Amino acid sequence: MPLEKSWVTSANSANCAFPLNNLPLGSMKTENGAACAVAIGDFAVNLTAAEAAGLISFAKPLCVDGNWDHLISEPSQTWASFRRTLKSALALGSSAEAGLNSYLVPLADITPNMPFIVAEYTDFYAGRHHATNVGTMFRGAENALPPNWLHIPIGYNGRASSVVVSGTDVRRPWGQLKGPNDDLPTFAPCARFDFELEMGAIVGRPSTGPVSVAQADAMIFGYVLLNDWSARDIQAWEYQPLGPFQAKATATSISPWIVMKEALEPCRTETPPREFELLPHLRDCGPMLYDIDLEVSLTPQGQKASTLARTNYREMYFSSAQQLAHHTTSGCSMRSGDLLGSGTISGPEKHQRGSLLELSWGGKEPMELAEGQSRSFLQDGDKLTLSGHAQGEGYLIGFGECSGVVLPALSNPFEGEKE
Amino acid sequence: MPLEKSWVTSANSANCAFPLNNLPLGSMKTENGAACAVAIGDFAVNLTAAEAAGLISFAKPLCVDGNWDHLISEPSQTWASFRRTLKSALALGSSAEAGLNSYLVPLADITPNMPFIVAEYTDFYAGRHHATNVGTMFRGAENALPPNWLHIPIGYNGRASSVVVSGTDVRRPWGQLKGPNDDLPTFAPCARFDFELEMGAIVGRPSTGPVSVAQADAMIFGYVLLNDWSARDIQAWEYQPLGPFQAKATATSISPWIVMKEALEPCRTETPPREFELLPHLRDCGPMLYDIDLEVSLTPQGQKASTLARTNYREMYFSSAQQLAHHTTSGCSMRSGDLLGSGTISGPEKHQRGSLLELSWGGKEPMELAEGQSRSFLQDGDKLTLSGHAQGEGYLIGFGECSGVVLPALSNPFEGEKE
Repeated sequence: MPLEKSWVTSANSANCAFPLNNLPLGSMKTENGAACAVAIGDFAVNLTAAEAAGLISFAKPLCVDGNWDHLISEPSQTWASFRRTLKSALALGSSAEAGLNSYLVPLADITPNMPFIVAEYTDFYAGRHHATNVGTMFRGAENALPPNWLHIPIGYNGRASSVVVSGTDVRRPWGQLKGPNDDLPTFAPCARFDFELEMGAIVGRPSTGPVSVAQADAMIFGYVLLNDWSARDIQAWEYQPLGPFQAKATATSISPWIVMKEALEPCRTETPPREFELLPHLRDCGPMLYDIDLEVSLTPQGQKASTLARTNYREMYFSSAQQLAHHTTSGCSMRSGDLLGSGTISGPEKHQRGSLLELSWGGKEPMELAEGQSRSFLQDGDKLTLSGHAQGEGYLIGFGECSGVVLPALSNPFEGEKE
Repeated sequence: MPLEKSWVTSANSANCAFPLNNLPLGSMKTENGAACAVAIGDFAVNLTAAEAAGLISFAKPLCVDGNWDHLISEPSQTWASFRRTLKSALALGSSAEAGLNSYLVPLADITPNMPFIVAEYTDFYAGRHHATNVGTMFRGAENALPPNWLHIPIGYNGRASSVVVSGTDVRRPWGQLKGPNDDLPTFAPCARFDFELEMGAIVGRPSTGPVSVAQADAMIFGYVLLNDWSARDIQAWEYQPLGPFQAKATATSISPWIVMKEALEPCRTETPPREFELLPHLRDCGPMLYDIDLEVSLTPQGQKASTLARTNYREMYFSSAQQLAHHTTSGCSMRSGDLLGSGTISGPEKHQRGSLLELSWGGKEPMELAEGQSRSFLQDGDKLTLSGHAQGEGYLIGFGECSGVVLPALSNPFEGEKE
């Protein structure tokens, strides 16, 4: 399918992240709260206002609450009809142009708001290069991948309350730390604060028992970019034996725009070769991944941005659908609004690594940045930005940017009384 | 404070789990959905109906939705005034007796419903005897406790969607398993299905940054009994390196009754002696635990119940308030309705162990039950029941029973199409 044309002319360029083929969904802050928005060209359409004014209408009101929870929980037929209606209204020659034209807001002027309420958040560890890099650093090259790793998508439950939208500042956390030469732990600000480049899949349809990979794929509403901020020193002390906890609870940033699965379908691609055949309930049921170019950049306060890494979502060993199928094997109920982090997406090359832990090899090889700067881990004031897009036939499917600035740790984390 | 007398005369016995001093909150199924209830003597009072009829009224309507989410999210002053109003209405000599009398339902006749919506669920591992037992089995006696264990309450995020109320059947899960002598994993029903005896603390007041132990304690609304059903064979294969995931996601049962913190206050007791002084932000700020006798019984299908273990909540090394304070150190936001599992509560003696894994020592020493039965792990049809009560001066503070029956695994977990 080639580029589809819109009456929003900035959407008709091959370099535009938000053509009519994409129509990613977000939320923007307004005087009264928040509004549902769709990105098209250089603009967002305020759909909450347009729907209220009767200028666009779906099978039922879907934009009333300023986020996409209603639509996400609908059957997939409604997702498809919603997209048809929206596409038709924004297509070149649509009679809706005159009405909707006054509901366009320049993207540069909007303040993103959470596009959905996260029901529960699960984070996986399903990128082979990342798991191999981290395992090599901690356990040596021969024991890099745990024995289970090639058979199940390893994951852990994260904290839904940690999820924030791009643009939200992230406060460097305090935590309990113990260096290898310390006798006793201390409570101190994190000194090894890091990012993780991930994609997030949003579960739309709920389930109450085990689902197949094909069923799981059909349950997924869409995808976001996701930065799983990570406190490496807190993690090193806390994670045995029950996994990461406070190291991952400070914040998890997502892109302002949810790209609906349908928009990504033309960009399907295969998973990497398997070392062991997967058990039947986790086996690929078609091309399981998407070809999505991803990039990380770091902007020290008041300085120029440097690209840290470039990689691609096709590097994942397990897809979101396989992760979701695994998630349900125990009978675990899945809910509309559940968010599944893919795990850090690293490629085989050094410049394709999706975290500073890997890029600086645990701090031993600091990354050189522009203007003579270098980084082993994030410093206060650093702005970290993820971006990504899939390449269609003559058009892009972009996610926008997922960014956050690291604020200094509180001087006393307990100051200020709480009720 | 001695036993307080109620016009519900069955509440006035020293052996009654639900005297006027207790007033635990639950929800019961009704023709139209569910109703808020309080247990008093042998009865539940349908407070939703009584409030709607104007026979009891609080500072604002608190019983409208059939669960306690409204009350739980209120400031602690409202919790206290709610209890005063309720206690006054149910006290001997209250003028409310004539009106409320017709809203009593025998406890034997009610079907429990979830008393609150679980926002997020965290499970800890903060009982020293349990951690020592499990660590000894898996790593040997010398390495039983991980190095961090005496310094932080080790915990992991669980799955809120897994939490069910007592009386809900629990389906034996399928999962990926690999025995020590197997070359490759298989997908099969869990063969080592277990319970874990825990208490759950319900977070009432939210927080947005680190809180002290005293602040954390003030945030807690109340407590429930909690059974963290556990698939030991699934856990053994999946838990390295990121912790338990599907092994803990089948179900987590809670007692039908939430005992509000105020009712437990007369039963405060100290934590066990500390091997290392805790860091200041986790230090005890008074007697941190409650003296609550706990019991586990197992009833094979069609047979008599056998007591598996008796222990006490005072065996915990870290209290719920200390767990909650630790939970916030990273800046993690806590929400009204968050549920914190204490971790398995085992005592020092064999008959005080809070799981079959410990009681049967990994299956090597099956537990003898009544009628010639024995158990290493749970069998299909087994009913597992937790019960517990604190002892006041001449009265009990009971939680009711937290029970569930193990149903056989599905023959084919993927049968039945989902949308």
